[in-house]
Amino acid sequence: MATGTVPSRSQVEGIVRQVVSARLHGTRPGPPALAVHASARHMHVSREDLDRLFGPGYELTVDRPLHQPGNFAAKETVTLIGPRSRLISNLRILGPLRSRTQIELAFTDAVSLGYDDVPIRLSGNLDGTPGALVMGPKGVVELQEGVIRAAMHAHMSPSEASHYGVKQGDLMRLRVGGDAAVTFERVHVRIGEESRLDVHMDTDEANACGLAQAREFALFK
Amino acid sequence: MATGTVPSRSQVEGIVRQVVSARLHGTRPGPPALAVHASARHMHVSREDLDRLFGPGYELTVDRPLHQPGNFAAKETVTLIGPRSRLISNLRILGPLRSRTQIELAFTDAVSLGYDDVPIRLSGNLDGTPGALVMGPKGVVELQEGVIRAAMHAHMSPSEASHYGVKQGDLMRLRVGGDAAVTFERVHVRIGEESRLDVHMDTDEANACGLAQAREFALFK
Repeated sequence: MATGTVPSRSQVEGIVRQVVSARLHGTRPGPPALAVHASARHMHVSREDLDRLFGPGYELTVDRPLHQPGNFAAKETVTLIGPRSRLISNLRILGPLRSRTQIELAFTDAVSLGYDDVPIRLSGNLDGTPGALVMGPKGVVELQEGVIRAAMHAHMSPSEASHYGVKQGDLMRLRVGGDAAVTFERVHVRIGEESRLDVHMDTDEANACGLAQAREFALFK
Repeated sequence: MATGTVPSRSQVEGIVRQVVSARLHGTRPGPPALAVHASARHMHVSREDLDRLFGPGYELTVDRPLHQPGNFAAKETVTLIGPRSRLISNLRILGPLRSRTQIELAFTDAVSLGYDDVPIRLSGNLDGTPGALVMGPKGVVELQEGVIRAAMHAHMSPSEASHYGVKQGDLMRLRVGGDAAVTFERVHVRIGEESRLDVHMDTDEANACGLAQAREFALFK
């Protein structure tokens, strides 16, 4: 508003709306607690591929639960062989089982395995992605596709989404403060009934922003 | 300006200033061309340490010139041994010689070498940083300090600094667009008479923002 001018009707209405809105929400709880986690490279596995890698009917063993309810790091690991016969051993499996096997790598991992390019994708969106050879104790799976760099995403419950005013698939921004302050601009909103507010980034992103030392986080539209 | 109100005197003055400024600068060249480079881990070496590693009076051999005039990647490499006897071989030396030896690592490198923490520093600001053992073909140097993660920085000439309205030591922002769009908030301005506009980031930062695929760059205050 320019100094010395009388506010217009629309400006007055805007101010009234803000005041009323603040009063209405005065008893509402504060912003939800924000967790930010780095996901190291890992594999989600289908029933069929687990059978081939570990034997028919094999069940994953929980090593530790993850922040999202029901998800866990399994004790089981596999060996991943990339396009130029380079390999990563001890690739961790995350449970529970999925309908399709999917391998999530940081770009550093992809380069070290010899991939020229690994696309940034949301989980489950695997069409046209590169494949890999996976070795387990009982067999080998030749994946035709399924290797991705996971797009940064924020898990949240419907009420947390409502707090931020976002819907499934929206993009938000995450600012991480500190000596290597960074704002990530494409954080995909993933809403689940059982989800807890939690931003997942890969190890490259975590290393770039100094996540382990960072103390300031802000998630916003 | 609110719709339907007459512009105030200060608004009119502001508009006139913008128009006049645009006319005055109409013949000025466009914004300087912005280069963004990823620096892989490397070592800058002092005369004294080069003597110990490669023999007295040894001179570095140019492998390829770098973007900043006078700087080059040398053919010579060393082996770097971290705090837990883990090592990185073929660590490239960059020339010319410096007054103090300095090793620049990405955080991923630091972790793989067994460092708990490597501080983010501007080049040359080495007090209190961790040390390392460096092996060359003719001898070993035990660095007491000198291992850093280089703070992201923008080299520029005085006239480029003037274009952006920044001075030595200012912080700027770099936005990298694309599927992993990121804004880095702490890009240190380093002005040199012979410098060319060029942002240097480490390989973690480059991998996090997908630098190799990125097409949009903006440097701003």
